[in-house]
Amino acid sequence: MRGIPDVTPTLNGDEKPIPPLQEGNIRIIPLGGVEEIGRNMTLVEYGDDIIAIDCGFQFREDNTPGIDYILPNTKYIEERRDRMRALFITHGHLDHIGGIPYCIDRMGYPPIYTRKLTAVMIRKRQEEFPNLKPLDIHEVEREDTIKVGDLRVRFFEVTHTIPDSMGIIIETPHGLVVFTGDLKLDHVDGVPTEAEEKEFAFFKNKKVLFLAADSTNCEKPGFSIPERVVTKTMDEVIKTTPGRLIIGTFSSQLERLMRIIESAEKVGRKILVEGRSMKVNIEIVKHLGLLKVQEKTFIGPEQLEQLPDTKVLILATGAQGDEFAALMRIAMKTHKYVKIKKGDTIVLSSSVIPGNERAVQKLKDNLSRQGARIIHREQMDVHASGHANRDETFWIHSKINPRFFMPLHGYHYMLRVHADIAKACGRQEDEIVVPDNGTVIEIQDEGQKLVRLKESAPNSLRLVDGFSIGDIQEVVIRDRTVLAQEGMFVIIATVNPKTGKLRKSPDIISRGFVYLRENQELLQQARIIVKKTIEDSTRNQNPINFDMAKTNVTDAVARFLFEKTNKRPLVIPVVLGM
Amino acid sequence: MRGIPDVTPTLNGDEKPIPPLQEGNIRIIPLGGVEEIGRNMTLVEYGDDIIAIDCGFQFREDNTPGIDYILPNTKYIEERRDRMRALFITHGHLDHIGGIPYCIDRMGYPPIYTRKLTAVMIRKRQEEFPNLKPLDIHEVEREDTIKVGDLRVRFFEVTHTIPDSMGIIIETPHGLVVFTGDLKLDHVDGVPTEAEEKEFAFFKNKKVLFLAADSTNCEKPGFSIPERVVTKTMDEVIKTTPGRLIIGTFSSQLERLMRIIESAEKVGRKILVEGRSMKVNIEIVKHLGLLKVQEKTFIGPEQLEQLPDTKVLILATGAQGDEFAALMRIAMKTHKYVKIKKGDTIVLSSSVIPGNERAVQKLKDNLSRQGARIIHREQMDVHASGHANRDETFWIHSKINPRFFMPLHGYHYMLRVHADIAKACGRQEDEIVVPDNGTVIEIQDEGQKLVRLKESAPNSLRLVDGFSIGDIQEVVIRDRTVLAQEGMFVIIATVNPKTGKLRKSPDIISRGFVYLRENQELLQQARIIVKKTIEDSTRNQNPINFDMAKTNVTDAVARFLFEKTNKRPLVIPVVLGM
Repeated sequence: MRGIPDVTPTLNGDEKPIPPLQEGNIRIIPLGGVEEIGRNMTLVEYGDDIIAIDCGFQFREDNTPGIDYILPNTKYIEERRDRMRALFITHGHLDHIGGIPYCIDRMGYPPIYTRKLTAVMIRKRQEEFPNLKPLDIHEVEREDTIKVGDLRVRFFEVTHTIPDSMGIIIETPHGLVVFTGDLKLDHVDGVPTEAEEKEFAFFKNKKVLFLAADSTNCEKPGFSIPERVVTKTMDEVIKTTPGRLIIGTFSSQLERLMRIIESAEKVGRKILVEGRSMKVNIEIVKHLGLLKVQEKTFIGPEQLEQLPDTKVLILATGAQGDEFAALMRIAMKTHKYVKIKKGDTIVLSSSVIPGNERAVQKLKDNLSRQGARIIHREQMDVHASGHANRDETFWIHSKINPRFFMPLHGYHYMLRVHADIAKACGRQEDEIVVPDNGTVIEIQDEGQKLVRLKESAPNSLRLVDGFSIGDIQEVVIRDRTVLAQEGMFVIIATVNPKTGKLRKSPDIISRGFVYLRENQELLQQARIIVKKTIEDSTRNQNPINFDMAKTNVTDAVARFLFEKTNKRPLVIPVVLGM
Repeated sequence: MRGIPDVTPTLNGDEKPIPPLQEGNIRIIPLGGVEEIGRNMTLVEYGDDIIAIDCGFQFREDNTPGIDYILPNTKYIEERRDRMRALFITHGHLDHIGGIPYCIDRMGYPPIYTRKLTAVMIRKRQEEFPNLKPLDIHEVEREDTIKVGDLRVRFFEVTHTIPDSMGIIIETPHGLVVFTGDLKLDHVDGVPTEAEEKEFAFFKNKKVLFLAADSTNCEKPGFSIPERVVTKTMDEVIKTTPGRLIIGTFSSQLERLMRIIESAEKVGRKILVEGRSMKVNIEIVKHLGLLKVQEKTFIGPEQLEQLPDTKVLILATGAQGDEFAALMRIAMKTHKYVKIKKGDTIVLSSSVIPGNERAVQKLKDNLSRQGARIIHREQMDVHASGHANRDETFWIHSKINPRFFMPLHGYHYMLRVHADIAKACGRQEDEIVVPDNGTVIEIQDEGQKLVRLKESAPNSLRLVDGFSIGDIQEVVIRDRTVLAQEGMFVIIATVNPKTGKLRKSPDIISRGFVYLRENQELLQQARIIVKKTIEDSTRNQNPINFDMAKTNVTDAVARFLFEKTNKRPLVIPVVLGM
């Protein structure tokens, strides 16, 4: 049982005023993504210029019920808007772009620099927010150098699961400040490919002052499965599966989606795409010419029944068991067109995101109940992560060879593990900083010293909850947590303000507590306690102290209900004097 | 986002009357444990006799917020109490014994047969339920044969993670009906030990009519890690770790706890046990003589500071990140005595139970934040499951070689995978039944035919929610789910029953919805809508239709709130005529 939401350390942001940045020093502040997976955003400040890298969101946690997203806290930028020069985006995943619609206005619409596909994905999302001003997006090429304020920014190509992923290099007088973004390595049996060697050769003999790198999979040993292996497995599955084939994957796995589509076309399987985000993303890569495929390879649902099963491939979102995604609707028999039949093969080309295990179990249960065969990653290489494992990370460190290091993208323990890898690569304890959200890091003394300031940038939780976007409403979240576990118990008593007597038996509204129809006796006793408690506390009062009556009745009823039911519902008294 | 709880298939129990059992037929009904991990219970009925195997509970699911436990539905037994002869318990884990205190009274206190340790654990738990009648427990030995009604029941020893685990053999005129209980195999590099060979040799040349076996880990390839390997790893860790050692594990892992304690004693580490369930279980095995250890090996918290760190081992519950368990309190710095310091090593000797991933991440984050080194199962063999993997399961099938087969203990997909293993062992499709909770299975025609009846035993959810134990209160769970996501909005309006006008501006009570202090304007508008809607609907009515006014105000306010906030709180109107 989880009770009150975790309030350390994020909510206790130490918001002492941060001293102004001294000339010659470089300040780096991760605003999000270092106590969680998601809401990635990091600032680099030098002289009069601030630039930000990424602006993602995080999906809600167990302890933020009902919340849509969690955002990086951009207050530090809001207070220094005049010096905010640019926002650089490494790639088009939501944990790197998802925060833009919610944060860009507060940041004062800085120009956004990113590569073509990412730019299109940002623009596409922005269409859902018609009230915002137009974005100022600049598409960059790998070889460009961008001048923002006094800083120059360059890029390098990284391998991830979506095209146009890039790392970012900021040139400072003391050396390069490098962000890898999310990345893994393309490799053959643990030997990085020539393309990787070539890309990272850039750093050879360069003075890299500071590196911030992806920690997501640092706990995993060796090298990750290269996407090439997944492509090969999928090719085989698409070619040899006898019946209908349904592949569930993330719509963000754009590289894989493209390979699957090409492979299906090659063997003459027609493709039905199910799931809005997947349709949108496939349209984008087709439109940009990244995916070259014949229009007739795609079919509509009405064509499903006209084709032999061996000629059908359904690409669907929802391999995470998301309730409203295509695959779950298919599993739950609520999908409009696609019904599972015996002989169907379903490939779950995905990992299970922590927290979704039960939902994925339910998905597998329901699909197999209808007679489908399921192939998942534990049986075949039908999925690979987009993040570097331990040995890849080691290789990346050895190539970039920075003076100072900060792990990014991960929960605290993952960052610690990454820090240990950096130590194994020769970094000393005082050359590494394991940050929290809002930690202010400075490189001082002409690039000689790494300092962690005792002051933090504002880092209280910023949530998207329906249309409300903003600082945490801690009390709202706490109430939801209690309501979810124990329910509520509202008492409405009308009191004659002259006599202090109840005008009638109190009304009780209860939800989520106990089954009322079977607990009439409990309600009856509660009513008696309400009447007695209020009349006892108002006796001989003139005027009547309604607040005192409310406090007394809350205490008495809460105690009574706990005694009888072992539950602690939210007890709310309404005492009306009339 | 998960909305309304999943209601298929458990809640839609097809409760058509079940035909009486024909003479000579055997009826088998899994009441729980075949659509989930937990609440294991299966019935065997023959002639005038019903016996039950196990009576466990399940911990709550995502879609049963606030619930303590889920029980097997024992209504089938309750309606046939006079024929309920005995309850056999395979071993002392809560998913096999946890339901006893909640179900035994309804079952009419049948005699319980089990081995010594299990008996002690059942009695110990029962102490927490002083209102129940005393249990009628009979301790059995491995070689005993018990006669219950016309049936004879024998036992065989199985390897699991707790001593005294056993499988159950019911002798019927048509052959043996065998339950494995939870089990794995002791083996060396995939070759089962002689002890296993000897135990399973019993089935050689026996006519096994029906097998029901553990499916939990059937998806996992090969053989599971033998506990012997874990013991060896732990021995090494206990011997070589330089500083203080904290081992977090399940209190139910009694075999491992015993080995750790023996190993610590051998190298002179003193042991502090933290966590009530662990203390109780260790006391039990000491008391039974299963664990032989010197009393001075155990220390109290006051001795912690007097010993050098290398002489300390703390055994703690809470490796799952359970909020109130010892290890989490240590991690959150709320533990009374144990504070983490640099140099501490923490071993998480456990797997992560699905659904607990975030909690375990938080545990690791908080421990590593304080400078502890963490060893978990992905780095070293510090944990092994107690359930057989695929190749072990194959071996078990080949030894027992049943005529008919039913997978038990697992989610539906796991059972399907287990059924595939049975097919690979030579079973035909019509010799296997993959059941749901409540499925009525019969062996008919003198043991020649396996039939799945179309009627089901009652299988609606039975929940333990505080002191309330019983059939599902679906509406309560649904309300909790909505309250958790969207909050509530209670409107209290007092209406003059003569004029239909509001006597004063309506009161609004809202929790878990939006932050009220920042939404005064919203509340003000809502009040105007309430007043207008009620007065519009009561206009010219005599007498006033309060129900209609309530419906109208609910609709109008819900629509308004959704428009303004994109949230759908539970809107509850209270219209008082006075």
